[in-house]
Amino acid sequence: MSRPNTAQIRTDDSSVASVAERARAASRAIAKLSAEARTEILNAAAAAIENGRQSVLAANALDCPEAETAVASGKMSQAMFARLRVNEHGIAQMAAQVREVARLADPLYRRLSATELDDGLILYKESCPFGVIGVVFESRPDVIPQIGALALKSGNAVILKGGSEAAHTNEALVAIWRECLGKFPGAPADAIQLLHTRADVMDLLSQDRDVDLIIPRGSYELVNFIMQHSRIPVLGHGEGICHIYVDRAADVKKAVAIAYDAKVQYPAVCNAAETLLVHQEIAKEFLSQAVPQLKQAKVELRGDAKTTAILPNAGIVPATEKDWATEYGDLILSIKIVSNLGEAIDHINRYGSRHTDSIVTEDAAAAKRFMDEVDSASVFQNASTRFADGYRYGLGAEVGISNSKLHARGPMGLEDLTTHKYKLYGNGHTVAEYSRGEKKFKHRPL
Amino acid sequence: MSRPNTAQIRTDDSSVASVAERARAASRAIAKLSAEARTEILNAAAAAIENGRQSVLAANALDCPEAETAVASGKMSQAMFARLRVNEHGIAQMAAQVREVARLADPLYRRLSATELDDGLILYKESCPFGVIGVVFESRPDVIPQIGALALKSGNAVILKGGSEAAHTNEALVAIWRECLGKFPGAPADAIQLLHTRADVMDLLSQDRDVDLIIPRGSYELVNFIMQHSRIPVLGHGEGICHIYVDRAADVKKAVAIAYDAKVQYPAVCNAAETLLVHQEIAKEFLSQAVPQLKQAKVELRGDAKTTAILPNAGIVPATEKDWATEYGDLILSIKIVSNLGEAIDHINRYGSRHTDSIVTEDAAAAKRFMDEVDSASVFQNASTRFADGYRYGLGAEVGISNSKLHARGPMGLEDLTTHKYKLYGNGHTVAEYSRGEKKFKHRPL
Repeated sequence: MSRPNTAQIRTDDSSVASVAERARAASRAIAKLSAEARTEILNAAAAAIENGRQSVLAANALDCPEAETAVASGKMSQAMFARLRVNEHGIAQMAAQVREVARLADPLYRRLSATELDDGLILYKESCPFGVIGVVFESRPDVIPQIGALALKSGNAVILKGGSEAAHTNEALVAIWRECLGKFPGAPADAIQLLHTRADVMDLLSQDRDVDLIIPRGSYELVNFIMQHSRIPVLGHGEGICHIYVDRAADVKKAVAIAYDAKVQYPAVCNAAETLLVHQEIAKEFLSQAVPQLKQAKVELRGDAKTTAILPNAGIVPATEKDWATEYGDLILSIKIVSNLGEAIDHINRYGSRHTDSIVTEDAAAAKRFMDEVDSASVFQNASTRFADGYRYGLGAEVGISNSKLHARGPMGLEDLTTHKYKLYGNGHTVAEYSRGEKKFKHRPL
Repeated sequence: MSRPNTAQIRTDDSSVASVAERARAASRAIAKLSAEARTEILNAAAAAIENGRQSVLAANALDCPEAETAVASGKMSQAMFARLRVNEHGIAQMAAQVREVARLADPLYRRLSATELDDGLILYKESCPFGVIGVVFESRPDVIPQIGALALKSGNAVILKGGSEAAHTNEALVAIWRECLGKFPGAPADAIQLLHTRADVMDLLSQDRDVDLIIPRGSYELVNFIMQHSRIPVLGHGEGICHIYVDRAADVKKAVAIAYDAKVQYPAVCNAAETLLVHQEIAKEFLSQAVPQLKQAKVELRGDAKTTAILPNAGIVPATEKDWATEYGDLILSIKIVSNLGEAIDHINRYGSRHTDSIVTEDAAAAKRFMDEVDSASVFQNASTRFADGYRYGLGAEVGISNSKLHARGPMGLEDLTTHKYKLYGNGHTVAEYSRGEKKFKHRPL
């Protein structure tokens, strides 16, 4: 692959440490912009993406031939190639997503709490930007406008590292953002920078002085690698082993539709369902309707002994212990019959990945228990697990989905790119008087 | 040291994996308790600590002789011994702290957001417990009632590992909590468990299935060790290199009092000041008043060339580059003269530890700039850095102080022991219709 001209992206001093240092300086400038200025930059970037469509398409035309060769020789999947390819419609969607984020409420400098500690000693807790965010992703050039919009709207600078297969396209998109930033006073182009090589990624993960947060987007292997090698906090998502539990009190028609949607609509993604848990009292009725539909959609079904006993001639293969803990990411679904709600909850908490799990039931008490006791980021009643997504949740776009309980849990949006600080206003206050008991705190919420 | 009788604490199956598994089961029970029940347990524990004072004092009397020998042979510091020793007053304080936490507002099951995604499809974001929290601490048996109260009030189970020098005292305190829990229906004693050895700590750090969060409390070395070896997310605090910046527009009297308090009142703690930055225009006036007082308190002063030039005969030794990046934790203070506010901010962002920094000024615009641009968890105007503390902030008690920007920043209280989950209520909703454009999201905030 010919190397793209990176002159417009980088100065001569292009070591990752220098990139990070310049990102830090840019982040301080971006954090000072008003909410209106940040929104205006996003809207200008959306227009610039549309106006620059020829340069993006031309760059993408440079990336595609090599990728086609890789597909032909089996080194790249068709799905990956599809994500790499950009057309006019894709560019329009990128611009639309940036405008969607521009429209969201400002996440910065919100007062999260206010307390009068004592006379003339007032404490505020306020949201503020993280600073510099590093995002490592594979393929998908549309990540750039998405993350660019989220990062700038929340007052951060961002360092991007995309897949080398999309190098030209990524360069063209980043160049558009940088040019756009350069037109706004107080908005340095270095608020968005692009890295190029795998070695750059390793360097990036050690810039803990100038980079505050790393977000990996891509395969489980990529996320794991980053988590193991980063000296910087990482927000990333692991596996998605999502469940649909069809309760005794389920509306069977809804259950069939939800199970079908959760498995078939897009099986490769993390919020697709991998296991169907079915209450024994409804199993025969539900399975006799669901199985033919799933079979017709070419879903391979793997059932426990009770399932195959109910439908012995439906072509359901026996499931093994390993199936309960597997994210297929494909048209495969495991099925287990359970005796009661508690068994379903225990199964999910034992084998699930704390991502998204849904109960289908008309029984509000059963739904409440399921949603309280299933220890997952998203718990649903009568809805497909596929709804677990930042855009669908109304977050505008998503940075990713977090299975962690720390900081961000579930789809991550604008707010998850902010942190907070405490601001204390005094009038010469010292601690000694309080330690000696001469003064007492009031701790009055304001 | 004789091993305490652990029969009351552990069942026969005392492997750390089993401890963690029982903590997980207990956490599910504690999470189901009402706010009233959790508060009642804390108040009962406070009373039980008071009533059980004889057993705690007797246990502490078993720990102290060995510690005294260690102090005599230089293996333990006097400060550490002081923290280990428990008296009647200390027990009364423990009970008071538990009652303080009991009085705080319930942090659980608060609605953080509500959105109508579409007709009949409603999304809630709700606070909930973490689950199981592991706390590793050194010396200080009073950590047990503090953490026990915070963990149970926020619906979590907790696994504690204290210093072996306080083993008997820790056992006695944990036994009181466990006995107290056992008296409440639905509150398993295993919601508080105690580990004993260093090997247990290593085992604990690998229980990522059953432990959700690790909190180390103690030396920088302990925190670093835990961070490097844990497979579980860690919330801990690193160094405290805190600054006082005396602005051109400072009230000199306030500045002297604040600098003195921040350095002298308790120099061993992380929120004590290590560096004084002084605007050149006020340096002579401020230093000529502050230096004699600091000297009288036996503070060693290390100044840059401008400082020693202003007060050549005050016994100020020359500071080196290393001083700016050092947490003394002792009666030592470095001093630097700066030309302007920007230089002070840059110095803090470069050498500080993002813990707590204070500006002394009567100029509101200077204070605003300092507090916006200094990238620290706590930023103060006209107050001693020593106020950065969970109790003083009105959080009741503190789990620790976080220098990280992820999840918790600054003093960590009750809220920081909670996470959140998304609850989505539908009526058979599937994603396919939205993907095909047949339905559109409303995303209406409720």
